[in-house]
Amino acid sequence: NILPRFYTHLYASDHLIVRRGQEFQLKVTFDRPYKPSDDQFAVEFVIGGSPQYSKGTYIPVSVAKDRQSPWAGRVVDSTDNVVTVGITPAPDCIVGKWRTYVAVVTPYGIRRTRRDESRDLYVLFNAWATGDSVFLDDADEREECVLNEVGVIYHGAYDDMSERPWNFGQFDYGVLDACLFIMDKAAMPITNRGDAIKVARKASAMLNSHDDDGVLVGNWSGDYTYGVAPTSWTGSTEILLNYSSSKTPVCYAQCWVYAAVFNTFLRCLGIPARVVTNFFSAHDNDGNLKTDVILDENGRIDKHRTKDSIWNYHCWNECYMSRPDLPQGFGGWQAVDATPQETSDGMYRCGPASVQAIKHGQICFPFDAPFLFAEVNSDVVFYSRNPRDGTLDPVKVNSSHVGRMVVTKVPGQDARRDITDQYKFPEGSPEERTVLEKAEEYGCHREKATPPEADVELDMPLMEVRVGDDFELKLEFNNTSDQARTVDVYVSGNVVYYTGVTSSEFLFKTPRVILDPKKGRRTKHILSNLCVRSQDYMRKLVEQANLHFIATGKVKETGQIITSMRVVTLHTPKLSVEVSGLAKVSEEMMVTVEFTNPFKFNLEDVYVRVEGPGVMPPKYKHYSLITAGSSLTWTEGVTPRRAGPTKLMASLDCAALRQVYGQAQLTVKP
Amino acid sequence: NILPRFYTHLYASDHLIVRRGQEFQLKVTFDRPYKPSDDQFAVEFVIGGSPQYSKGTYIPVSVAKDRQSPWAGRVVDSTDNVVTVGITPAPDCIVGKWRTYVAVVTPYGIRRTRRDESRDLYVLFNAWATGDSVFLDDADEREECVLNEVGVIYHGAYDDMSERPWNFGQFDYGVLDACLFIMDKAAMPITNRGDAIKVARKASAMLNSHDDDGVLVGNWSGDYTYGVAPTSWTGSTEILLNYSSSKTPVCYAQCWVYAAVFNTFLRCLGIPARVVTNFFSAHDNDGNLKTDVILDENGRIDKHRTKDSIWNYHCWNECYMSRPDLPQGFGGWQAVDATPQETSDGMYRCGPASVQAIKHGQICFPFDAPFLFAEVNSDVVFYSRNPRDGTLDPVKVNSSHVGRMVVTKVPGQDARRDITDQYKFPEGSPEERTVLEKAEEYGCHREKATPPEADVELDMPLMEVRVGDDFELKLEFNNTSDQARTVDVYVSGNVVYYTGVTSSEFLFKTPRVILDPKKGRRTKHILSNLCVRSQDYMRKLVEQANLHFIATGKVKETGQIITSMRVVTLHTPKLSVEVSGLAKVSEEMMVTVEFTNPFKFNLEDVYVRVEGPGVMPPKYKHYSLITAGSSLTWTEGVTPRRAGPTKLMASLDCAALRQVYGQAQLTVKP
Repeated sequence: NILPRFYTHLYASDHLIVRRGQEFQLKVTFDRPYKPSDDQFAVEFVIGGSPQYSKGTYIPVSVAKDRQSPWAGRVVDSTDNVVTVGITPAPDCIVGKWRTYVAVVTPYGIRRTRRDESRDLYVLFNAWATGDSVFLDDADEREECVLNEVGVIYHGAYDDMSERPWNFGQFDYGVLDACLFIMDKAAMPITNRGDAIKVARKASAMLNSHDDDGVLVGNWSGDYTYGVAPTSWTGSTEILLNYSSSKTPVCYAQCWVYAAVFNTFLRCLGIPARVVTNFFSAHDNDGNLKTDVILDENGRIDKHRTKDSIWNYHCWNECYMSRPDLPQGFGGWQAVDATPQETSDGMYRCGPASVQAIKHGQICFPFDAPFLFAEVNSDVVFYSRNPRDGTLDPVKVNSSHVGRMVVTKVPGQDARRDITDQYKFPEGSPEERTVLEKAEEYGCHREKATPPEADVELDMPLMEVRVGDDFELKLEFNNTSDQARTVDVYVSGNVVYYTGVTSSEFLFKTPRVILDPKKGRRTKHILSNLCVRSQDYMRKLVEQANLHFIATGKVKETGQIITSMRVVTLHTPKLSVEVSGLAKVSEEMMVTVEFTNPFKFNLEDVYVRVEGPGVMPPKYKHYSLITAGSSLTWTEGVTPRRAGPTKLMASLDCAALRQVYGQAQLTVKP
Repeated sequence: NILPRFYTHLYASDHLIVRRGQEFQLKVTFDRPYKPSDDQFAVEFVIGGSPQYSKGTYIPVSVAKDRQSPWAGRVVDSTDNVVTVGITPAPDCIVGKWRTYVAVVTPYGIRRTRRDESRDLYVLFNAWATGDSVFLDDADEREECVLNEVGVIYHGAYDDMSERPWNFGQFDYGVLDACLFIMDKAAMPITNRGDAIKVARKASAMLNSHDDDGVLVGNWSGDYTYGVAPTSWTGSTEILLNYSSSKTPVCYAQCWVYAAVFNTFLRCLGIPARVVTNFFSAHDNDGNLKTDVILDENGRIDKHRTKDSIWNYHCWNECYMSRPDLPQGFGGWQAVDATPQETSDGMYRCGPASVQAIKHGQICFPFDAPFLFAEVNSDVVFYSRNPRDGTLDPVKVNSSHVGRMVVTKVPGQDARRDITDQYKFPEGSPEERTVLEKAEEYGCHREKATPPEADVELDMPLMEVRVGDDFELKLEFNNTSDQARTVDVYVSGNVVYYTGVTSSEFLFKTPRVILDPKKGRRTKHILSNLCVRSQDYMRKLVEQANLHFIATGKVKETGQIITSMRVVTLHTPKLSVEVSGLAKVSEEMMVTVEFTNPFKFNLEDVYVRVEGPGVMPPKYKHYSLITAGSSLTWTEGVTPRRAGPTKLMASLDCAALRQVYGQAQLTVKP
């Protein structure tokens, strides 16, 4: 039953697993030699509770030449009692677990074999079959997006990116059944389960627990006491198996967890899928192309009135399929997003939206394209609030901040690929303008005012900072005028959730800066005496190690407003993962995870997780204390199940230190 | 505060109710004479929990010439201490209940009046304002679809239609607040509440109790013991007030109840809306253009295998609005459907879908157009089941049965209007073919086979039958061949729910009919000895008085299959409603409801309901027994609240007899 050409041999399952639109073979054994002229029989496939021929849930496959079956059947070979039958499931047939029977016409009527669970057959989507709606012509992408169990998820900041490994585990024992269970739990009609669009849409609703007791409970509070911290998971397997056995939502997730588990679901069923990360993702604007920042009359942020947020990054998925429900040209990669976005209009499912349609502003087509369009295209509009009557005047529009970069993993390599050009035309190009106008035609609101550009620019250059470091924040001013300028600047440093919501302010300074007039090419002025101490921010870190600086100010001479934002990704210490012994199928080897607490404080209530596809199922250990400077070493004996290249992935997580990851690559010998 | 030109004077409310995009006036009284040069003030409007200028939830309106407000403001008149201010809410502003303040700039800062609930202001959609997205240019339609409280709902069969009155009651005391409560209960973001598309979509989800504890619980079981039978309601008021006070779903509804209450919601908020009825509505096919009927090898219906159903009729709503989210040409009437359709893919909300898009097969645009398209365009496909291997062969395709007629009430009259041409091109026209091909391009599946037409046709002509009548069922054969034909016919008579689901079979006959060859023009052969007795069906009637006959047969000589379907609407006895005394505002008059049980059996557990807009709130009486032949008389004193033409509407309902309605028209003098 192992059929490598279906690329399904990797599934840890005792059942036959095939892909639709491609022939597989079954042996039928009779109690006497088979005579084609006399013995009429059919292989029957049945799915769901009320099988019906006209619904495609009952498929009798005849090998007789004169009968047409919805699934083609032929006798491949016949030797004595054994007939080998070749069967080709229709390329649009229902995906799921089919029951198999053999029906024989006898003089006494039709006789059917009994139900035998061991003969149940899984039929999956087939990215290799041209007739399948998920056919993907690029062999590298297909292999990556259906078969690769190991992924890389990008986070942090667009110019200082972090990455972490993830075990999608789509072939792990029980995962396929768990993915099918998700559709059962959603009461998704069996007859829709051959439609990749509907499967992806339904799953985007079911991956989150909102409305429908779906897979994962979101939690952005920083308190993960009654579940697993989102940063602690190393893969999808544990989550999916937990969900399918408990039948209740699993705690806790944030966007990358939703996206990673959704990716497992899609790959497991055979729909090509990948996780993408969008840096500076606009949220909560419900299809409007504006994220509002409110300043007071002095140019300082009015935190109380600034409600919109920009996520430092946001992960969603792309899945590959044709779109027969849309006009031509919108097939291919489709964006789907399973993260529930609390304050948007009941948006607890999102997509599939054609990436091509998003790029061209054709947001009138389903599903949820305006929302995804806004996530990569919003403007950040700074308003100055008139204290007299509360009205707001736009003083600065930053149209290049949001959707700064969209990345995903390169097929076949541990490298990242910038796919911003799939979502947007280049900043400032004529096409970009046309697309934004098109989106406005379809009802997206933009800020129309274009406040004059200030002749002073402000920037905060990139800094590479490790958790626990003291560092200096630099403000870089650029006076392009021929006159001196005086700027009153407000610099605020905040610990923020990656959703952009501020947790606490640890730095607030109000320097006055006097800028010389432009002298030839020399226009720069650097202010670098803003010292940030680790003790200021360490105790306040929340679920991710990000610091968010925002500087705003008013130029005294002109009244113009200048602004700059900077996310500082605090680089975490690494976790060491090492393998010793020969990596060989069915032979024990050793995995060692090591970590040294580099800080001057103790780490408490620490969870370490490790897993590796084909090598080791998810395991975790709890350490109640890792004192300052001390180390932990965890050695585990494991027995690889499968040959080939793979990875061991580990995470370390506690309230004071999150996002500590490590990995080891290895190749298991047969 | 009564402003007739807003058409809002009908609302029973103590508050100011205005429509957006149109000026209203407020008087501001100062404690000393107003001096325009010195006294700076603004009228402020605030809605929702966190008012924000940039979100349109905080609107300061200044009358100063140099300030621009989102809502225009001007001083209309100023006499001593009193300033009359004219304010024009933006035509796209948020619809709902606004709080009003006056802010005055004083030497000590801004002073604001205190919250005073009596100054709360309701702002509604405005079908009279060109700038509003719900602007409707036709004055008759606008008046009907926003202001008419009394509706007519059509049901029964397309060629033997019944109708019933309905009190939408959108102006009744508490109804506007109940409609706003529905959006609160749905946690619909305040900022979306100016968008008619989003309001209609959200309400289509909230009108049913699925998923979200919405307004009405559906029940098609025939057992309505723990609530009000769907056939018993006479209007929306009782339902909406019950929902907003109990905050839990109201029992019970079927399609016309959903549509009627949805209509109240839309009209109450100012969105033009009407209830439409589609005769023979295809369901459960999830966008496929096929309703399958399975016959056995003899041509008899296989009820066990026939799962799809065709509703005798189905009611939904149309609402009028522009569609900026779609390409041009798809504004105007939009279909929305609040009836939860149990077995379709999580379709507990449906629409708005452009009726224009449905007509042209442009079903790629949101929302849910393929589903609505199928409701009016499905083919009924008869399959013959091969007993040998269970495969099905299409033997007849009836493409004109489903969506036989769509009707609604004529504006300003109690007459019906056939609007089938708004949904479909004429049967058999080249445009119809093009549209179906277009829909197929967008993924609707149709039966491709075109089985040969039989040379024998079968029809069951219309019969007008009253509940309790014995009658004869006629089968009309038409042999267009030159040869004699023998047909074995299966005639089945069933009591069905209006959803097409069979409750019980009361008649089954298998006549053999021998048809003479065609002789010149004489081809008809009528079989009329099929007697239906009242005792056969009376005890089995379910929630509506419909009998469903289906005749199928196989022509012996050719093997061809012939079929015919007939819904017999059993006409119910009338309820008499009479008014005595002078109908004059604030003067008591008498309303008398009378009914005589015309049957030979007793009616038990009978509910009589009566109500009339502006005259009488919903009231009901319970009669435990109305013996055979006996009468009931219910007289009630009522005091009209409002002048003008109106109706009193009554229903009588018990398990043995449903859908008994009566009405009286009257004009209340001022």
